[in-house]
Amino acid sequence: MAQAEKLTTREENFSDWYVELVRRAKLADYSEVKGCMVIRPHGYAIWENIQSVLDKMFKETGHQNAYFPMLIPESYMRKEAEHVEGFSPQLAVVTHAGGGKLEEPLVLRPTSETIINANFAKWIQSHRDLPVLVNQWANVVRWEMRTRLFLRTSEFLWQEGHTCHATEQEAQEETLRMLEVYRRLAEEWMAMPVLCGQKTESEKFAGAVSTYSIEALMQDKKALQAGTSHNLGQNFAKAFGTQYQGKDGQQHHVYQTSWGVSTRLIGALVMTHSDDKGLVLPPKLSPVQVVLIPIGKKEAFVFSLEACKNIHAELLSKGIRSKLDEDESTSPGFKFHEWEMMGACLRIELGPKDLAKRQCVLARRDNAEKQVVALEGVAERVVEQLEAAQRDMFIRAQKFVADNTFVVNSWEEMCEKADAGFLLAHWDGEAATEALIKQELGLSTRNRPFNLPQEKGLCVKTGKPSVGRVVFCKSY
Amino acid sequence: MAQAEKLTTREENFSDWYVELVRRAKLADYSEVKGCMVIRPHGYAIWENIQSVLDKMFKETGHQNAYFPMLIPESYMRKEAEHVEGFSPQLAVVTHAGGGKLEEPLVLRPTSETIINANFAKWIQSHRDLPVLVNQWANVVRWEMRTRLFLRTSEFLWQEGHTCHATEQEAQEETLRMLEVYRRLAEEWMAMPVLCGQKTESEKFAGAVSTYSIEALMQDKKALQAGTSHNLGQNFAKAFGTQYQGKDGQQHHVYQTSWGVSTRLIGALVMTHSDDKGLVLPPKLSPVQVVLIPIGKKEAFVFSLEACKNIHAELLSKGIRSKLDEDESTSPGFKFHEWEMMGACLRIELGPKDLAKRQCVLARRDNAEKQVVALEGVAERVVEQLEAAQRDMFIRAQKFVADNTFVVNSWEEMCEKADAGFLLAHWDGEAATEALIKQELGLSTRNRPFNLPQEKGLCVKTGKPSVGRVVFCKSY
Repeated sequence: MAQAEKLTTREENFSDWYVELVRRAKLADYSEVKGCMVIRPHGYAIWENIQSVLDKMFKETGHQNAYFPMLIPESYMRKEAEHVEGFSPQLAVVTHAGGGKLEEPLVLRPTSETIINANFAKWIQSHRDLPVLVNQWANVVRWEMRTRLFLRTSEFLWQEGHTCHATEQEAQEETLRMLEVYRRLAEEWMAMPVLCGQKTESEKFAGAVSTYSIEALMQDKKALQAGTSHNLGQNFAKAFGTQYQGKDGQQHHVYQTSWGVSTRLIGALVMTHSDDKGLVLPPKLSPVQVVLIPIGKKEAFVFSLEACKNIHAELLSKGIRSKLDEDESTSPGFKFHEWEMMGACLRIELGPKDLAKRQCVLARRDNAEKQVVALEGVAERVVEQLEAAQRDMFIRAQKFVADNTFVVNSWEEMCEKADAGFLLAHWDGEAATEALIKQELGLSTRNRPFNLPQEKGLCVKTGKPSVGRVVFCKSY
Repeated sequence: MAQAEKLTTREENFSDWYVELVRRAKLADYSEVKGCMVIRPHGYAIWENIQSVLDKMFKETGHQNAYFPMLIPESYMRKEAEHVEGFSPQLAVVTHAGGGKLEEPLVLRPTSETIINANFAKWIQSHRDLPVLVNQWANVVRWEMRTRLFLRTSEFLWQEGHTCHATEQEAQEETLRMLEVYRRLAEEWMAMPVLCGQKTESEKFAGAVSTYSIEALMQDKKALQAGTSHNLGQNFAKAFGTQYQGKDGQQHHVYQTSWGVSTRLIGALVMTHSDDKGLVLPPKLSPVQVVLIPIGKKEAFVFSLEACKNIHAELLSKGIRSKLDEDESTSPGFKFHEWEMMGACLRIELGPKDLAKRQCVLARRDNAEKQVVALEGVAERVVEQLEAAQRDMFIRAQKFVADNTFVVNSWEEMCEKADAGFLLAHWDGEAATEALIKQELGLSTRNRPFNLPQEKGLCVKTGKPSVGRVVFCKSY
């Protein structure tokens, strides 16, 4: 068996490294349909793990799943002015169906605020029907000119939450509650630290009153918007007539929110933790937490395999996602590389000498540490090391963000640090200034982090007054 | 609160009863987009329960989930001759995207054999890559002129399994293995007896070598095809060049299968068990297994509510899907009707007199039986009654099928029994005869059941020789 070809390194070309890795680790592949991807089983298994974490948190916060049509009458899209302006360039349109031309073209949902409001308007009559808290897991289509696996594809999978409330305050609380759910997913499961904060006016969702995001920093020091939560106010409610009769007997428009994360998160996971040998995945989300590799030839292999089978069964019984690599035709070295590529969190090596000493080797993927452990109690060691890997990956990622976050106080510093990571800078709050900074340095505002003390200052670009720093960064 | 309006009864108009029930029980609703439905939370929760049962069985039989693009180049559809002929009339076509006309139109997947084979052809090189066992949970679009909620909609949700094997025999085994998974879902979870068997040539999937189905009998004595499993042979493999290098060093086309069930199953569930008061759902799939209704006014209500809360907490802790109806503004009678409509399997009524005697009333939805049980040990009684309801519903449904299945030996009998249910009749195996019977009596062949002894006979229509009986029925 030939040694697997090496990946382009991150330093050589981060973008090539990323795409090669996604394909070599069998996470996803391009399809012949422009901009659309195939999510392969190893990639989809990560998505299923993310889904299961999120779905549980959605239900714990009172949400129910539902499903709305993918096809939206074109006229619906035009009912909310900002919304249509924002999404028009990305729409895919069905003009023919069932052998004939449609009377009205149907667009493939780029997001479902419009079709959902058309139904909410029918379901909601009274204040007793509120709040309405629904979520849907779905595919959406936003036509893209330049695509990259997981990060930007014409069709992608996501969840979109849609809620209706009687008051502005409840809607705002919901908006922030769901942002916090996303933060927990990112930090506690993906081991990916994020900045929680509010987007600027020009970066907010088309049709929202305000948009909040979680922003992560990739290893190439570019930001990635990993999730958004929108306070929609009454914009869509007014466009679609979504009203309720209040306790006062009067009709009122509902206050709404929407929030979503997508398969883009898999790209974020890859770019946060992986290395030049392949995937590094946090144990809580990795499809393969442990891989067992029996060492030896012929009879020795059989003995090693038997011992590995016992450990494998014990790990499975403890709910650990364990894999036994029984293939006798490839060398242990080949298998090591293969499973490093696939992001198995822990590797257990066990050969005849180990067996004689009732021990095995435990190797961590995230930091390459190896230790010899007794077969007695190996499952406990595995659990400890998985927990340690999860924790250490988050700490390392936090350190990376800290090391690449800078307070910037002048335009010279902005220019100098344009590729350096998160830049905390004063800005005058003008969309024109924001556009200018983007144009000159490729830096966009990410968000205004909640945990950043808001002291006054002067805009790094114009010198005009600023109410507080925002985060600038190059971004995906 | 007004008494809820009654449903049209099944006897008055089965079709009206069905649609009214689906809407009143908040399972689903039509959308403004022709033929597309909204699956509401109560309906989607049933789908989630079905998904979770199936997904577990798919994984236990070695399958992994993946996701393939929804948009398929029109040219792909034309590669397999029967396939394009079968699906052409139902295709929805995207002609414009991103503000311009597409070079090649893209169809919305009616099923994914073509796009999946385009990828399998790249993934599979050697016999070591086989078998490939994947499944996807997805939406599909088949444009329909006449639609009915869940039963026939232009967009629906389903799962589609797609597998590749080295040999014809393995593919055939897989085809039948997955049909058995569907049978188990139908009988053990849905409490819906089914006939497992092979479809005739004219009823098989467009592009398959052979198609097998599970067929259920609805309360109006019409059949519903509830799931299909196809042996695709090498048809798609040859059309797309899906080949592997065998141990013999030669290239071979793979043998394939595909199999699917859809949200149509929810319609089948409704039409198998429900009654004129509303939904009757098997406990294993019902979103609400128990509803607790505190009885009494003012202070008495508070005491009843407290006692109900204790039971509710205990039921939840045992993993029972329990619901506590705390609303003080509606009467117990109103709530009884409401929860009968929604298909709550068991109702617990508890008032001040019950409380004094440390007891409560347990009422079953499926057979309307009521019993008084002690509060001590009520959770055990609930578990027993849920199991009993699941079992009894299946037995009743089995009896219904037995009572409405007839051996038919002449054309006169066929005419007489055309609306009577499953008809076991000899048929000469000719598509023309099949078409004639359909045209004259509206009866189609459902399948040739595995468990039906195949004795020779004479066709009821032509008198020509028959190799064995097939099942005829009017159908959805």
